[in-house]
Amino acid sequence: MERIYNFSAGPAALPEEVLAQARDEMLNWRGCGMSVMEMSHRGKDFTAIIEQAEADLRELLAVPANYKVLFLQGGATMQFAQVPINLLNGKSADYLVTGAWSKKAFKEAQKIGAARLAGSTESGNFTRLFHRGEIAIDPAAAYLHVCTNETVQGVEVLSDANLPGISDSIPLVADMSSHVLSRPVDVSRYGLIYAGAQKNIGPAGLTLVIVRDDLLGHAPAHTPTMLDYAVHAEHGSMLNTPPTYAIYVAGLVFQWLKRQGGLAAIEQIAIAKARLLYEAIDASSLYRNPVDVSCRSRMNVPFTLTRPGLDETFIAEAKKQGIAYIKGHKMVGGMRASIYNAMPLEGVKALVDFMAYFEKEYGR
Amino acid sequence: MERIYNFSAGPAALPEEVLAQARDEMLNWRGCGMSVMEMSHRGKDFTAIIEQAEADLRELLAVPANYKVLFLQGGATMQFAQVPINLLNGKSADYLVTGAWSKKAFKEAQKIGAARLAGSTESGNFTRLFHRGEIAIDPAAAYLHVCTNETVQGVEVLSDANLPGISDSIPLVADMSSHVLSRPVDVSRYGLIYAGAQKNIGPAGLTLVIVRDDLLGHAPAHTPTMLDYAVHAEHGSMLNTPPTYAIYVAGLVFQWLKRQGGLAAIEQIAIAKARLLYEAIDASSLYRNPVDVSCRSRMNVPFTLTRPGLDETFIAEAKKQGIAYIKGHKMVGGMRASIYNAMPLEGVKALVDFMAYFEKEYGR
Repeated sequence: MERIYNFSAGPAALPEEVLAQARDEMLNWRGCGMSVMEMSHRGKDFTAIIEQAEADLRELLAVPANYKVLFLQGGATMQFAQVPINLLNGKSADYLVTGAWSKKAFKEAQKIGAARLAGSTESGNFTRLFHRGEIAIDPAAAYLHVCTNETVQGVEVLSDANLPGISDSIPLVADMSSHVLSRPVDVSRYGLIYAGAQKNIGPAGLTLVIVRDDLLGHAPAHTPTMLDYAVHAEHGSMLNTPPTYAIYVAGLVFQWLKRQGGLAAIEQIAIAKARLLYEAIDASSLYRNPVDVSCRSRMNVPFTLTRPGLDETFIAEAKKQGIAYIKGHKMVGGMRASIYNAMPLEGVKALVDFMAYFEKEYGR
Repeated sequence: MERIYNFSAGPAALPEEVLAQARDEMLNWRGCGMSVMEMSHRGKDFTAIIEQAEADLRELLAVPANYKVLFLQGGATMQFAQVPINLLNGKSADYLVTGAWSKKAFKEAQKIGAARLAGSTESGNFTRLFHRGEIAIDPAAAYLHVCTNETVQGVEVLSDANLPGISDSIPLVADMSSHVLSRPVDVSRYGLIYAGAQKNIGPAGLTLVIVRDDLLGHAPAHTPTMLDYAVHAEHGSMLNTPPTYAIYVAGLVFQWLKRQGGLAAIEQIAIAKARLLYEAIDASSLYRNPVDVSCRSRMNVPFTLTRPGLDETFIAEAKKQGIAYIKGHKMVGGMRASIYNAMPLEGVKALVDFMAYFEKEYGR
């Protein structure tokens, strides 16, 4: 079988150019006589790889000089604990719950220390963001935690301008796992940004953290060394052996993003892909997406089939057309098309065409 | 340049067959239409990969049924904290310090809870293991921690028979990062075994933990979920997205080990490789290894040049002969040849030949 269109929510499709380059360099990276997987992380070759990756990421996201870029491990789930461990500093943190992932983050923070619910859209089934006045933020909060794209429900804070207004004294902490690098963000509005790599960055097993300098150094004395951001910052993400191959592939993705024209250009493609799919859903009588149009995710598009009993047929027929991992998350059911950066417009067109065909064949 | 002989202590050489297979399958794993890097970790393809990897590892190490195999992240450094967090259970743990890595493990355990030094060979510069009567174990210890191969000093507990005698009521915890899978071990003698992957298992970013069932479930309530072995065991290493690609490559390494005849066969090769190198060192007047012959590591062979000022020349000349990452750790200086499973006998022969040539040219 040829390569297919992979709509997985993560691990997810990677640019074919990146995979081809990784393949070509697998046994011998640029004539050095070994694979990147085999290199000492302290040697000059890998040092060049990680430094280039960080420089490219800083350029893509215009990361200010007073922020550290850390390449860590453990995914967003590790960050759910690591953020409060490092940032609570004896205080309480506020959480906005807008879907499955921010709910998990809030629950984990409560396990670690003092965490307070500043707002939740759960009563509306996580299909919208907050109305004016629905959020009550503790003025003494250590930080406010938000998830700017909910992968399960498909709800996204589509622009920094839509962030909740908070006092400058409260750092904003954002889980950007499933939209990072899909559009420019103003990093200076955030105290800390984190993202698991396996959606828009690279292979699973790598976690990106971007943290403002003044937030480092507040972890309690008994904190495991591996969970202390300050120690990783001090060692340039080389406290111990980092996930070297994942960092290398992420670096190839960053270079690919630069070749696409950077994040402003990528955002235009993301807008076009999402529009095509949401318009197809809205125009049909078989498909339905319940999310308010003001915050429909450009990355994860969940939809249900209004006619019951068709889900398995849809999935099986899609597979025959080279459309994979389209099944929705079990919490919301139905389908989910994750259309991260590496999904070409042609893939979304193929999905939309298939959906139209399927509706004609089965939907009436 | 062709592929070279890579003596790095880790990340380290991988079998060329494994890299070639990873290369060939990079864009399309067995006709599924995508890379392993792109697969959902919950899908049937990746489920088959991780289940096969675990089954092969269990077969190679003859892991008893009452032990869980966990594929985690963070390396041995994370385990230095995770072990006491999960196993202290309100008690104190004993540590044997036999080199740089067990010293680090002990220091980290003291940060987490109560840890006690049960013996140290530091006064002898970590060049031997313990004499009779040098170890004093707390009969109430939560566990006894050992590092069965010290990567920096090149000191190895070469057989389970050389382990310190302890009461059955005290679980033995072993950091096997740099000799795991180089020989059979009797897993039932250990309560917990851990190993970073980047020496004998696969790519950096994957950590192997083998833990006896009765040691699960004792982590304190405030433990980060990602650090609780019991939660990982319950979820079959799929609490969140695991480092999927690293697990896949490790699985290829396990299959390669089986094709070599398993660990008994691999041990014979390791013995032959180590003997060749130590004999060359001992027979020369230029090279010197200070470790007692009863515990010289088969994996990491440090040696110094007795004539001063030659180190940089040795390294540069070695590089010209396709011998890379031969420089020793800064703590002990000189050279270090790490000769893990993937280093072929031919590589050690090439090193020994080069050493003889170098001694003739520069050593007199």
